[in-house]
Amino acid sequence: MKILVINSGSSSIKYQLLDMADESILGTGLVERIGEAQGTLTHKAHPGTDAEAVVKLEQPIPDHGVGLQLAIDLLSTGDNAVCNREEIGAVGHRVVAGGPFNAPVIIEESMWPDLTETERLAPLHNPANLGGAKEAAKLFPGVPQVLVFDTAFHQTMPPHAYMYAIPYEYYEKDRIRRYGAHGTSHKYVAGECARLMGKAVEDINLITIHMGNGASMAAVKNGRCVDTSMGLTPLEGLVMGTRCGDLDPAVHNYLAVNRGLDVATIDNILHKESGLKGLCGYGDMRDVHAAVDRGDERAKLALEVQTYRTRKYIGAYTAALGHVDGVVFTAGIGENDDIVRAKTIEGLESFGMKIDVEANAIRSKEARKISTADSTVAIWVIPTNEELAIAREALALVK
Amino acid sequence: MKILVINSGSSSIKYQLLDMADESILGTGLVERIGEAQGTLTHKAHPGTDAEAVVKLEQPIPDHGVGLQLAIDLLSTGDNAVCNREEIGAVGHRVVAGGPFNAPVIIEESMWPDLTETERLAPLHNPANLGGAKEAAKLFPGVPQVLVFDTAFHQTMPPHAYMYAIPYEYYEKDRIRRYGAHGTSHKYVAGECARLMGKAVEDINLITIHMGNGASMAAVKNGRCVDTSMGLTPLEGLVMGTRCGDLDPAVHNYLAVNRGLDVATIDNILHKESGLKGLCGYGDMRDVHAAVDRGDERAKLALEVQTYRTRKYIGAYTAALGHVDGVVFTAGIGENDDIVRAKTIEGLESFGMKIDVEANAIRSKEARKISTADSTVAIWVIPTNEELAIAREALALVK
Repeated sequence: MKILVINSGSSSIKYQLLDMADESILGTGLVERIGEAQGTLTHKAHPGTDAEAVVKLEQPIPDHGVGLQLAIDLLSTGDNAVCNREEIGAVGHRVVAGGPFNAPVIIEESMWPDLTETERLAPLHNPANLGGAKEAAKLFPGVPQVLVFDTAFHQTMPPHAYMYAIPYEYYEKDRIRRYGAHGTSHKYVAGECARLMGKAVEDINLITIHMGNGASMAAVKNGRCVDTSMGLTPLEGLVMGTRCGDLDPAVHNYLAVNRGLDVATIDNILHKESGLKGLCGYGDMRDVHAAVDRGDERAKLALEVQTYRTRKYIGAYTAALGHVDGVVFTAGIGENDDIVRAKTIEGLESFGMKIDVEANAIRSKEARKISTADSTVAIWVIPTNEELAIAREALALVK
Repeated sequence: MKILVINSGSSSIKYQLLDMADESILGTGLVERIGEAQGTLTHKAHPGTDAEAVVKLEQPIPDHGVGLQLAIDLLSTGDNAVCNREEIGAVGHRVVAGGPFNAPVIIEESMWPDLTETERLAPLHNPANLGGAKEAAKLFPGVPQVLVFDTAFHQTMPPHAYMYAIPYEYYEKDRIRRYGAHGTSHKYVAGECARLMGKAVEDINLITIHMGNGASMAAVKNGRCVDTSMGLTPLEGLVMGTRCGDLDPAVHNYLAVNRGLDVATIDNILHKESGLKGLCGYGDMRDVHAAVDRGDERAKLALEVQTYRTRKYIGAYTAALGHVDGVVFTAGIGENDDIVRAKTIEGLESFGMKIDVEANAIRSKEARKISTADSTVAIWVIPTNEELAIAREALALVK
């Protein structure tokens, strides 16, 4: 079966078509600037192979429906067609916030009230994600539309990990609790790590660190998530590119009193002007390293704060799990940044965690172990593949 | 020397007079309802001894100056006098927020601009604390007024522990950073723990847990604080009686959008309607236990959330310290609640932390070790004594 995976943003669509017979990528692309005067579409047929063919379009793309139609045309017609449209047996959609949904679902009409209710949990992402699914349903009548929720993997958390210590009615009436995010990625790399360690995921405990522009961690006990660092929203937890992560919740009022800021303005600052960018002016970790190399003291500070915060979470999740078999780094920074990995694990010898300096320094697209032979906890770098994970979830449901 | 220790609240004064020759308490008392129609003063001469004498006054106490004068009269005149007023060689004042002050100080006129600047860091406490010091200076001309800051012990934290990942200008211009609180208590029990373990505090690493109605933890490396759970204010960190502790900083905006609340209202809820009270309706841990015994599910949840949060901090601070010699429980809950202690340490065997069930169950006013013989980390219950700690700091400065 061929499965189309879609990640709809507010003005963009990322897509990937996979042949599930061998999990190969037939085509992939990115539609951008939807609704603007001029939109763009970058499409690759057979990406990463000798047969790779790139198409770039520049034209007005008024809405997501038009963008998706363009993508499907490129995939299924013309010289670079990689499939017949009828071969697409399911469409898998990334959805950031699943609220109470604890597993992927094939959309049924009756679900829409509950799905719409999730939009307030991720007002920037969910309306776009679900809107993309609606458009795809129109373009592929009769083809199952599978929603794969970033939060689903975290739904196994026990109440003591997901409840905030605020008035209980906010949980009952407003659904305020920890949901987490990046669940599809955490689940994927946990499964891969178990496979690489020659164990069933049910038989090991892992700490997974998804560290890209957004960053989160999960404590995975016997294959099930028991805690994660993102919360009601993706703002809590680790220091991110522009997001603050953990913060004294009294800072809002302090800024309101001392700066005259309102809560919407503060929220915007904590999402877009904070994190690494807030500390040193650079929101991209590569720029932070470059600044450190130039002797920039605030960039050094940003790197220290970011890695120290992550290190504390490793300690906290070791306490939550009792015993840890492996730590996994994934996503942009996790896969490519040996300095961040080394600094994060620094001083954790008493946890049985030791980085092999040489193994850590090797750059690779492959999964690899970077701990020393005498590290009792195995430390891994495992590239994440959310599209493949979504396609697998969709395939399993459709079957 | 005799030293008077004062803790001035917004409408109250706690005081204690100590004879530093043997650190005995000569007199102690509490003035309440200052500024109300009817105030009260409860005074004990020679408390806890055979000579104990209790005096209760009920009369209008218009301001802190009058309250303090009444206390001094009871201490130094009449049948139950415990000293001559001239014998009081110093007055020690508890001050919640010290901002940049990293050690106790004898007040000098030139300090007032900096001291006044600290008031916005603790608007509920510092004006009262500092106001008490001003009144005492009038009543004891020429006697050193020593300010002992709750935050001073935490001033040794490195920048990566005290910086938030928010725009740097908020640190530069508004002094937003982690300051912590309960520092006098953390320092005192850390010192006591070292003494009881027969070591210099400079030679061991400790995690201290001050858990009363307010609650905080400190990571103490070689006698110096390197991290603490309270932040800019005493709202961050552990779950407290009515304070939320750690929370996704996006919850504010979510409540503003979904409930129409403003930031001041949210702040008030997070301080006064949250914590244990928010989760189960009971803000006092003793009431939570009673409710658990009645089978109250939400009280069970509150207990689980509270102890799980603390357990995660033990893990985080173990990561921060690298190696831990001892864990210390202190303050109301820490000293008296064996259930909370046991649940907090539960599952930390891999950290070398094991509670001795029998030793933990014993109720006592004395410092005691509650870990098993094979627990590689010593776990202690050590009663705190902030008044004595303040008096010692004052004595050291005056000498």
